[in-house]
Amino acid sequence: MCNNCDYTIHGRHHHFGWDRSIPPVATVAPGSNLHFECLDSSGGQLTKDSTVADIGALSFDKINPVTGPIHVDGAEPGDILKVQIDGFEPSGFGWTANIPGFGLLADQFEDPALNIWSYDADTMAPALYCDIAKVPLKPFAGTIGVAPAEPGLHSVVPPRRVGGNLDIRDLAAGTTLYLPVEVAGALFSVGDTHAAQGDGEVCGTAIESPMNVTLTLDLIKQTPLKFPRFTTPGPVTRHLDAKGYEVTTGIGTDLMTGARDALSAMVDLLCRDYGLSAVNAYMLCSVCGDLRISEIVDMPNWVVSFYLPRIVFE
Amino acid sequence: MCNNCDYTIHGRHHHFGWDRSIPPVATVAPGSNLHFECLDSSGGQLTKDSTVADIGALSFDKINPVTGPIHVDGAEPGDILKVQIDGFEPSGFGWTANIPGFGLLADQFEDPALNIWSYDADTMAPALYCDIAKVPLKPFAGTIGVAPAEPGLHSVVPPRRVGGNLDIRDLAAGTTLYLPVEVAGALFSVGDTHAAQGDGEVCGTAIESPMNVTLTLDLIKQTPLKFPRFTTPGPVTRHLDAKGYEVTTGIGTDLMTGARDALSAMVDLLCRDYGLSAVNAYMLCSVCGDLRISEIVDMPNWVVSFYLPRIVFE
Repeated sequence: MCNNCDYTIHGRHHHFGWDRSIPPVATVAPGSNLHFECLDSSGGQLTKDSTVADIGALSFDKINPVTGPIHVDGAEPGDILKVQIDGFEPSGFGWTANIPGFGLLADQFEDPALNIWSYDADTMAPALYCDIAKVPLKPFAGTIGVAPAEPGLHSVVPPRRVGGNLDIRDLAAGTTLYLPVEVAGALFSVGDTHAAQGDGEVCGTAIESPMNVTLTLDLIKQTPLKFPRFTTPGPVTRHLDAKGYEVTTGIGTDLMTGARDALSAMVDLLCRDYGLSAVNAYMLCSVCGDLRISEIVDMPNWVVSFYLPRIVFE
Repeated sequence: MCNNCDYTIHGRHHHFGWDRSIPPVATVAPGSNLHFECLDSSGGQLTKDSTVADIGALSFDKINPVTGPIHVDGAEPGDILKVQIDGFEPSGFGWTANIPGFGLLADQFEDPALNIWSYDADTMAPALYCDIAKVPLKPFAGTIGVAPAEPGLHSVVPPRRVGGNLDIRDLAAGTTLYLPVEVAGALFSVGDTHAAQGDGEVCGTAIESPMNVTLTLDLIKQTPLKFPRFTTPGPVTRHLDAKGYEVTTGIGTDLMTGARDALSAMVDLLCRDYGLSAVNAYMLCSVCGDLRISEIVDMPNWVVSFYLPRIVFE
């Protein structure tokens, strides 16, 4: 709960996909502070008692509910919605899955897999994984955005210039996010909260975890913005970097192939040196490893690197 | 100089491009420690007195000399060359250029530009840029690799599975690099030293700076390795991250377009908020900003982000 918030938006006020015709659940003045209850990205279909059999039974119509939408008074197309991300109240429960058909190596990992996480929501101490790794946590909202101008229902899966399923792991507490407004009132929603994720979200899921989120919404009038941008208040990887990194690379003419090669090499390394199964290595990469573009100018070959923080094994 | 090194390889022992037929300048036992004198990537064509007019006069036959090659006793195809990067002796002089035809936004920046850097090689204090930014320094070797198996002369520009022009900014002091060996003796060379660079090297050049490099070369026999990998001894961005980041994004179905959109947005932001000219913003991005893949799984749209450390303005 949030004693100082202007509004509390309960988790039952959620929607599936983006549609400018969805009626707002609240209308707020610029500068308002809101407390959102967010469901996990399975919308409660997975629980702490779930097993891998439940992955096959997931209803994709109920995937990735977002809480909202919020009509911001005076917001108009061409404005920027300024979202100050104030804080998170994690739940202590999470899950990571390999869902057939999703993920950067979907062709190599065709079988479902599930890891149920239990973490200490008070201390946010690193969470144990497969009895051999401890993953540092940093909560953020995977899906955060406003309604697109184009009428009709838009899938929640792809992110867009108005935000949505951005899955940017640095949209954490203290960060300010700037979103282009395309419809009157902006129609802001948030959900898909994650307890941890690496850059790339390579297996397709993070530590998916229901959480409450506190935000302040404000407007910057009539300012051009092509895509979302954000400002972080400080370092973004210090919870991960103290012991350095194992890094693998992929080199070639295509960034996507480079990313896949770098990730495949890291999965192999984790299996060989740390005794993880391939799918458990793949899911570990998703929750704490980072895809970076090391060089994109040495024609015709680019270097994509995958960074796995060694702190998870120390 | 290096009092404890087994070998000193002078800068006159350099070559242009990779060719397995280039005679080695030294033959060393595994475990040897070597001190290399490295030229800058212009091979001395640019100096502290150079002007932008000198960019047009660059001879590309003399670009990116590497010092070597070194024959490592007993190295055979299928081995790994383990390169312990011990340290750098920076020179205090550097340059960054926009060279027409090179760089991620070559179509937008068609005119040559040049920035001459002067930095304190003893303190390695952040280097002043355009009188308004201070860029933290972290020296590394942009080009480091071994000879490809395929006979003939191979351009030095693209990196390959045997390394070469990797331009990975974390190949800094203390890092261990693992390279696949393709020819007898490995034929190792190093050069293209940089005083600082961001992930991506987006304008096509870093702070190009002549420097001496100390390395230890060792062998791991008959171990498969598809592409280079490396291990960093500790954090990789703490010289940059203390004040957080400005971050722009590019969102869409193509990672290259996303990278270009994110970078273009950062150039615009730096011009608008910090008063830099567009080409000076572009070059600043190259020496200290990072391209990261935020998500690569939310079909069909991926998010590429450009991170500019705010410490350069504080």
